[in-house]
Amino acid sequence: MTPGIERLIQAFRALPGVGRKTATKYVYALLQAGSEASDELEQALAQLRQATRTCQVCFNWAETNPCDICQNRSARQICVVETPGDIVAVEKSGMFRGQYHVLRGLLDPLNNVNVDDLTVDALVARVNNASCDELILALSPTREGEATCRLIATMLAPQALKITRLAHGVPLGGQLEYVDEGTLSLAMEHRRSYP
Amino acid sequence: MTPGIERLIQAFRALPGVGRKTATKYVYALLQAGSEASDELEQALAQLRQATRTCQVCFNWAETNPCDICQNRSARQICVVETPGDIVAVEKSGMFRGQYHVLRGLLDPLNNVNVDDLTVDALVARVNNASCDELILALSPTREGEATCRLIATMLAPQALKITRLAHGVPLGGQLEYVDEGTLSLAMEHRRSYP
Repeated sequence: MTPGIERLIQAFRALPGVGRKTATKYVYALLQAGSEASDELEQALAQLRQATRTCQVCFNWAETNPCDICQNRSARQICVVETPGDIVAVEKSGMFRGQYHVLRGLLDPLNNVNVDDLTVDALVARVNNASCDELILALSPTREGEATCRLIATMLAPQALKITRLAHGVPLGGQLEYVDEGTLSLAMEHRRSYP
Repeated sequence: MTPGIERLIQAFRALPGVGRKTATKYVYALLQAGSEASDELEQALAQLRQATRTCQVCFNWAETNPCDICQNRSARQICVVETPGDIVAVEKSGMFRGQYHVLRGLLDPLNNVNVDDLTVDALVARVNNASCDELILALSPTREGEATCRLIATMLAPQALKITRLAHGVPLGGQLEYVDEGTLSLAMEHRRSYP
């Protein structure tokens, strides 16, 4: 391993889920592919850093402030998510045409993530100022997600605002026998009349 | 997705085994981690491209020509491998202290990889010039690997040179019932007296 190869291996290892073996594979593939692939990656990194900022309304990554979504969509519905990546997932579903609010984390006092580390205050201010009818909490159904949902509901209780959460249930395409019992029990509890 | 994010996703997708989902994860992780991780990756890419060349003796990636291994190790044994990555694997085994020769591919006429695309001619010239006693063929036991082994053996037949191949057999830690029948049949054929 040359110092140059070793340095790039270490740099790749900063990416999530990339160990030494995968990082080494990436470096050799780039060397093999020649300078074009490597140049493009380098320039794309430079562009990302220069062009990307945080939208000060919704806290998503954006190249403008406010971002395209905050500029062009109705604020009647606001979908609250943990990370910018969650927005991509919700957008793919195609079922939501409102605005977003990225919390940039979930309450996790054991790991020193408190309410001041999240963008909850900005959310409260935003809901106060805008004509928002419904807040959809699209947070992970984990302990941290639950705690964060409760916090937001408490802080927004004074407002006349409908707060909803995503439905829980059996995932599409999931085989029933592999669905965990917690999910199945919720799916049973929230069963719907059919057809 | 902003244009900057989209561009970096596409650039990451050029890496082996990286699809859209993984590439998106990498980009958001870099954004989350802040400029330091992103800068380091960018600079490491630039350094790699500037510093790395091909050793004209063994055709491994190197920062000097000839490379460290070709300068400092005995040429009595030369281990022939397909890619520079294979050298890393052999070095890790710690059982080989000679020099290497990277073929930069395997014979594959169906995909238009012929003898001129490999560094076989350079290998023949190298063996002619250097005082090499043994050539160890460490190529994959695939059809292409077999064909390449045969080609090298034929081209070097006039030389008084010992040519060997890596042993085939049951991998360490492999459970016998999951070892494929071809490997098992070779392991049986090449069984060794014990203890």
